[in-house]
Amino acid sequence: MNVEEICRRASEAGVEVQRLSMDKKNQVLQKAAQLLVESSAEILEANRKDEEAAAAAGMPDSMLDRLRLSQYRVQGMAEGLKEVSALPDPCGETLAEWDRPSGIHIRKVRVPFGVVGIIYESRPNVTADAFAIAFKAGNAVILKGGSDALESNIAITNILREALRACGVTQDALSLIASKDREDTNEFMKMRRYVDVLIPRGSAGLIRAVVENSKIPVIETGSGNCHIYVDKDADFEKAVPIILNAKTQRTGVCNAAESLVVHEDILQSFLPVLSEKMKEAGVTLRADDASRAFLPYAERASEEDFAKEYLALMMSVKTVRSLQEAIDHINRYHTKHSDCIITENKEAADLFLREIDSACVYVNASTRFTDGYEFGFGAEIGISTQKLHARGPMGLPELTSYKYLITGNGQIRK
Amino acid sequence: MNVEEICRRASEAGVEVQRLSMDKKNQVLQKAAQLLVESSAEILEANRKDEEAAAAAGMPDSMLDRLRLSQYRVQGMAEGLKEVSALPDPCGETLAEWDRPSGIHIRKVRVPFGVVGIIYESRPNVTADAFAIAFKAGNAVILKGGSDALESNIAITNILREALRACGVTQDALSLIASKDREDTNEFMKMRRYVDVLIPRGSAGLIRAVVENSKIPVIETGSGNCHIYVDKDADFEKAVPIILNAKTQRTGVCNAAESLVVHEDILQSFLPVLSEKMKEAGVTLRADDASRAFLPYAERASEEDFAKEYLALMMSVKTVRSLQEAIDHINRYHTKHSDCIITENKEAADLFLREIDSACVYVNASTRFTDGYEFGFGAEIGISTQKLHARGPMGLPELTSYKYLITGNGQIRK
Repeated sequence: MNVEEICRRASEAGVEVQRLSMDKKNQVLQKAAQLLVESSAEILEANRKDEEAAAAAGMPDSMLDRLRLSQYRVQGMAEGLKEVSALPDPCGETLAEWDRPSGIHIRKVRVPFGVVGIIYESRPNVTADAFAIAFKAGNAVILKGGSDALESNIAITNILREALRACGVTQDALSLIASKDREDTNEFMKMRRYVDVLIPRGSAGLIRAVVENSKIPVIETGSGNCHIYVDKDADFEKAVPIILNAKTQRTGVCNAAESLVVHEDILQSFLPVLSEKMKEAGVTLRADDASRAFLPYAERASEEDFAKEYLALMMSVKTVRSLQEAIDHINRYHTKHSDCIITENKEAADLFLREIDSACVYVNASTRFTDGYEFGFGAEIGISTQKLHARGPMGLPELTSYKYLITGNGQIRK
Repeated sequence: MNVEEICRRASEAGVEVQRLSMDKKNQVLQKAAQLLVESSAEILEANRKDEEAAAAAGMPDSMLDRLRLSQYRVQGMAEGLKEVSALPDPCGETLAEWDRPSGIHIRKVRVPFGVVGIIYESRPNVTADAFAIAFKAGNAVILKGGSDALESNIAITNILREALRACGVTQDALSLIASKDREDTNEFMKMRRYVDVLIPRGSAGLIRAVVENSKIPVIETGSGNCHIYVDKDADFEKAVPIILNAKTQRTGVCNAAESLVVHEDILQSFLPVLSEKMKEAGVTLRADDASRAFLPYAERASEEDFAKEYLALMMSVKTVRSLQEAIDHINRYHTKHSDCIITENKEAADLFLREIDSACVYVNASTRFTDGYEFGFGAEIGISTQKLHARGPMGLPELTSYKYLITGNGQIRK
């Protein structure tokens, strides 16, 4: 089947998925969870083929780990499907309703998008996760995974489609563009007629490529150059654990902190305390000249460091003379993901909250909280770093749209 | 100033505009209204240059009319600014807030986008309208109007910027890309780094070009192939006035009806009644074979007619054997703008409301109600026909985003 045909059929399936009751959608997800576990041998076999081919092609170990599935990871995929089945159905909700002097009644209701497309990279477990969230929100789903994981994705998709069939739902509710040809991806990104929204998940490079090339509306996710600003009125007892947590708890994730900004008044009192702890945690610092005076082990930062998402045990350090300079610096170099101020000064906190142009702005808490589960949304499809439609963690409601239902009894416009 | 520099400065200005109080924003709009009226001679002089050049280049009369300003139209622009100043400020509102077991408190607040770009065509009054709405919503604004109206747009923008200056607000809160060079427009559409959202206003061709070329997130507006379906259970006393109103009250607008769909059971009883009225109103019908039997004056419809936005006294007529066929036909040919069912049957109405995939779905009322004023929103920047972010009439709240403010007292993620 060619890409256009896949998208056309998904568009038709979208109408059917929209009609499904919550119970039916949950039944599909439960069935899929069961079948995934039952078919894990088949999935692992397909995954082994992907891994062997990737290893032979020289894929580095860290990447191979992302690609690799195990009994445990398949179990995790199944658990993920069950968790999504436990979430409330966002659709059908009346968001507002009112009468107009003309006599018409207007009701704004939440409805699915229709068709959601997701383009992602190596990790084959995204196949099940992304399907579950987008389908539960009432959408037909088209997936385009990484070429490296093609065999795994085909195996997983076949099982998910089998669950749809077993529950009497059209299998076109989920399609995989099972191709390694880049032209097919380009073709997919042109299908604005059939696909309502496209979400890229993966590296900064992938996201940029989708933003550059898609004719379908995109929700940009992911890249996070998160800052922590230690104000002159900071409580160091809070600052040190928060910085350590945000930098080291998990380094390869978008909500990890990458950049430290410090008020010049506290360089001498604060940095030596922090420096010890960072050294113990194995964090390399790249600091500007003013801060390096108090950070014996720091390397010298270049301008580029301030814009960098290291995704590693590395952090840049910038000295500022004022809160306003901190805000300006952060708004210049961040990726609008998550930024934090450590301060006991309410006015400083309020200014920071108001002026930092990020999806999530923190006072005295780790940026690592930017996450669907930590926010209480349950599963998320990603963290939006754009401002159109959804910002920050995207759960089920963020995968819906709305429409207006207008009823009258013969009203015409004067 | 080159395009990138304009966008960079707008981005900085966006931070300042976001800080303005509602009173200050209203003061700017009131001042701008006053200055527009006081400077109408200057505006009309600039407009005369545009018109002469356009006439000399052979612009047809209907287009010249769109381009032309008059004392009355300048007055209308000023009134528009005052109306926007009377609308409530959407920003700062807390949309939701909650505590989490981790101890963090999360608040979701409405904030401006930052920078809104608008690309439009001949009508120079859009310059003032678009600025007013986007600015009142707290955004810096970058306008790129049609080349034909360049002198008029420069004159109007200068006056609006003078109002900003007189109120002590940075003039970079409004910029015009004062160029006739298509390359500058292409450059503008690449400024994702500085511009948060781009809204095209104008012909289907303009909108398509922006959707195709923009790297900035776009809200698609405007084109409307609106349908009216007359069900077998329709009340003809409602159907005839609604169809006449939707087709003829104003033909050049996106919420005018273009396509009539009729249940086969009522061809004989309904069409002759309608036919007379349509003839009186000067409407040409293009009908399929089944309906033509009862429409003596109708021309024969081709497949293309069903997809056409005539924007003229012309309407296609399609016969269907069932409500479901009507729904399928409409979902195939419409532009997801506004569609209506005429019926007294509640079940039919409910199915239509649920399954028609449009921004606005009507029962027994004219599609002409799809409008910011008719919905009670006040001024609108356009009618969105996409599903990402905003759907249907877009007022001030649709020109905003949100962010999460998270406060803690030292929380870290376990």
